[in-house]
Amino acid sequence: MQNPDKKGTPLEGLLVLDFTWVLAGPFATMILADLGADVVKVEAPGVGDFSRRYAPFVAEVSHYFQSINRSKRSLILNLKHERGRELARRLASKADVLVENFVPGTMARWGLAYEDLRPLNPRLVYASCSGFGQTGPYAQRPAFDIIVQALAGTMSITGEPGRPPVRVGFSAADLGGALFTTIGILAALRERERSGLGQQVDVSMLDAQVALLENAFTRYFTTGEVPSPLGTRHSVIVPFQGYPSKDGQFVVAAGNQPQWLAFCRALGLGRLAEDARFATPSQRAANVLDLEREVSARTATLTSQECLTALAAADVPCAPVQTIDQVVADPQLAERGMFIETQHKRAGRLRAAGSPVKMSRSRVATPRACPDLGEHSAEVLGEILGLRDEEVEALRRDGVI
Amino acid sequence: MQNPDKKGTPLEGLLVLDFTWVLAGPFATMILADLGADVVKVEAPGVGDFSRRYAPFVAEVSHYFQSINRSKRSLILNLKHERGRELARRLASKADVLVENFVPGTMARWGLAYEDLRPLNPRLVYASCSGFGQTGPYAQRPAFDIIVQALAGTMSITGEPGRPPVRVGFSAADLGGALFTTIGILAALRERERSGLGQQVDVSMLDAQVALLENAFTRYFTTGEVPSPLGTRHSVIVPFQGYPSKDGQFVVAAGNQPQWLAFCRALGLGRLAEDARFATPSQRAANVLDLEREVSARTATLTSQECLTALAAADVPCAPVQTIDQVVADPQLAERGMFIETQHKRAGRLRAAGSPVKMSRSRVATPRACPDLGEHSAEVLGEILGLRDEEVEALRRDGVI
Repeated sequence: MQNPDKKGTPLEGLLVLDFTWVLAGPFATMILADLGADVVKVEAPGVGDFSRRYAPFVAEVSHYFQSINRSKRSLILNLKHERGRELARRLASKADVLVENFVPGTMARWGLAYEDLRPLNPRLVYASCSGFGQTGPYAQRPAFDIIVQALAGTMSITGEPGRPPVRVGFSAADLGGALFTTIGILAALRERERSGLGQQVDVSMLDAQVALLENAFTRYFTTGEVPSPLGTRHSVIVPFQGYPSKDGQFVVAAGNQPQWLAFCRALGLGRLAEDARFATPSQRAANVLDLEREVSARTATLTSQECLTALAAADVPCAPVQTIDQVVADPQLAERGMFIETQHKRAGRLRAAGSPVKMSRSRVATPRACPDLGEHSAEVLGEILGLRDEEVEALRRDGVI
Repeated sequence: MQNPDKKGTPLEGLLVLDFTWVLAGPFATMILADLGADVVKVEAPGVGDFSRRYAPFVAEVSHYFQSINRSKRSLILNLKHERGRELARRLASKADVLVENFVPGTMARWGLAYEDLRPLNPRLVYASCSGFGQTGPYAQRPAFDIIVQALAGTMSITGEPGRPPVRVGFSAADLGGALFTTIGILAALRERERSGLGQQVDVSMLDAQVALLENAFTRYFTTGEVPSPLGTRHSVIVPFQGYPSKDGQFVVAAGNQPQWLAFCRALGLGRLAEDARFATPSQRAANVLDLEREVSARTATLTSQECLTALAAADVPCAPVQTIDQVVADPQLAERGMFIETQHKRAGRLRAAGSPVKMSRSRVATPRACPDLGEHSAEVLGEILGLRDEEVEALRRDGVI
């Protein structure tokens, strides 16, 4: 099990048995793989992770699947077959961590619930990430990102004022669940260092999304006012928003009084700095629409670059609204090595966003291409369970793997 | 240091020295506090964490501050005073973790850079969360949520098609940075169990945000097409979006063929199931605007509740777009205990979103009210450094604490 990809990574030596599919679960186990865990992705014969079928493809490799399954190994296990379930139990008895994101009860039907596995491996950290959690009236409902963004209130505070709510453009609900699941797993591993015992971690995408909306809730609890979409604006700080330009839009965050004054001067709007309606932060907040009108009338006559150059020269925090191609070309992200590539044997070079966790002494794992379905079945069963080639061949013949 | 609040929590016994302010840093240390770490928030005399001044207030307690600083202790240290810096170094030599989210170089000016502290405490995990990271051309720029959402491409894919981009309604860039910082800290702690050594963790809000946009980037790398705002729609799956109703909007996620057929029947749109334009997933994706027009014309004649009742009866995943007050009243979140309250000595009951990490054997810390500025100065210096009351009094007289 000496894997050169993992040497010197913080989670080197950690075996993760991964029953996840599509997004929240696979994103969590990709974080663990980037940090050096040995992630064995258990997939059903024939189809595997459903997201292997999401378009677009390069040489039949789904861009979606590859973006969240790098550096994992794939093992086919037919869990409808008793010998498949038996292999899963034997692997779980050797693993440090098991992760699954099925609708609650699914793993139990295969005899793979936490209660089934704990007697075999009391040290196992068993993480369940689901739409709504293992308990409560919605527990059995399937969840999708947009369902959770709608129920959690995220959509109700995202969009333009007076227009319909919009969905956050990335899968915020799935990924929030993934990140808190990862945190739960790592916290349970630390607890295990002291107690010697594993436990079940139960994270719900809905709970995670609500936690991330923190100040929308406290604002409501404090004022009784129901937050609504603000376009690009901040709920309290002004100016902290996007403004239109001749050729698009740019953003400004002028959080304090010197920045406010510098903002006015930089845009040739010195008269606003004298205007009683905008004299203090709370007056600017109260008259934010008047201010928006005044500023927009001016910025719409300039290009984004003209506005940004003037604001940057005056030390006012500001930025262009970058499109995805511009982000890919951003020099800061190049310097940070945030776009990685893997070499896939059929699809060739595959590029993706990398790990944002940098450490001074440890390193993230060298990224390897996402696995083909069952690519590592023989390797994993040989390495972890000591199965011989003939045994693996027999399992394959019998449709177990 | 036996703290009943922390007993039985996964991070019990972990001492975190917290130099963070406003959002990304404090959110990370709140997660650690919820998981049972002893978080000592180090604040400047007079002002403290700047977010203590963010409106609205209850009895002069900022709703914003309280939402991300529960269960921490507050220690005033005047870092402009050499004796203040000396106390900080002595505390760092006893801590497991230090977290800071200043512009890079700030801690170094106080003699509190990682390189300064490592010789005093080689086991220290020193986490730096910044807008752009400790390296690279933008490193010295201050960052705010909207600046990072603009630069990372988040805004460019959020909003309605053909209209200006919008900001995600919660501070997605700050909180993404917070979550990956927490993951980095916990991973470094696990590595320390083996090596006996700490290290610096360097997380940038921009890197974190880019990592969370994963499939927007792989889609671009695969197709060369630059993703743009889609309103409520998914980039591939159809129907997976919001539709208007007589009284608002609701969302549907019909990811497979049986759900598609059930969707049509449930809404009295059986003819669409027969329509050649919508026969397969890829045809529905290609003709998504035609489909939207057809479906919207029908749903706009019904209430959201009528649509949701019919869809739920047909087992099509769907949900109302809940507003924040409706989320607070949601029975699932009540069952999960996701809204917690603390008792503040002046402000009384303060409510907020709680921790989404549930464990079967460990528990999260019992939430305590956010601290007043310097509330625990004497307690912390006595408990951790063994200072006597007279010594603390002298420090206070001299303006050190």
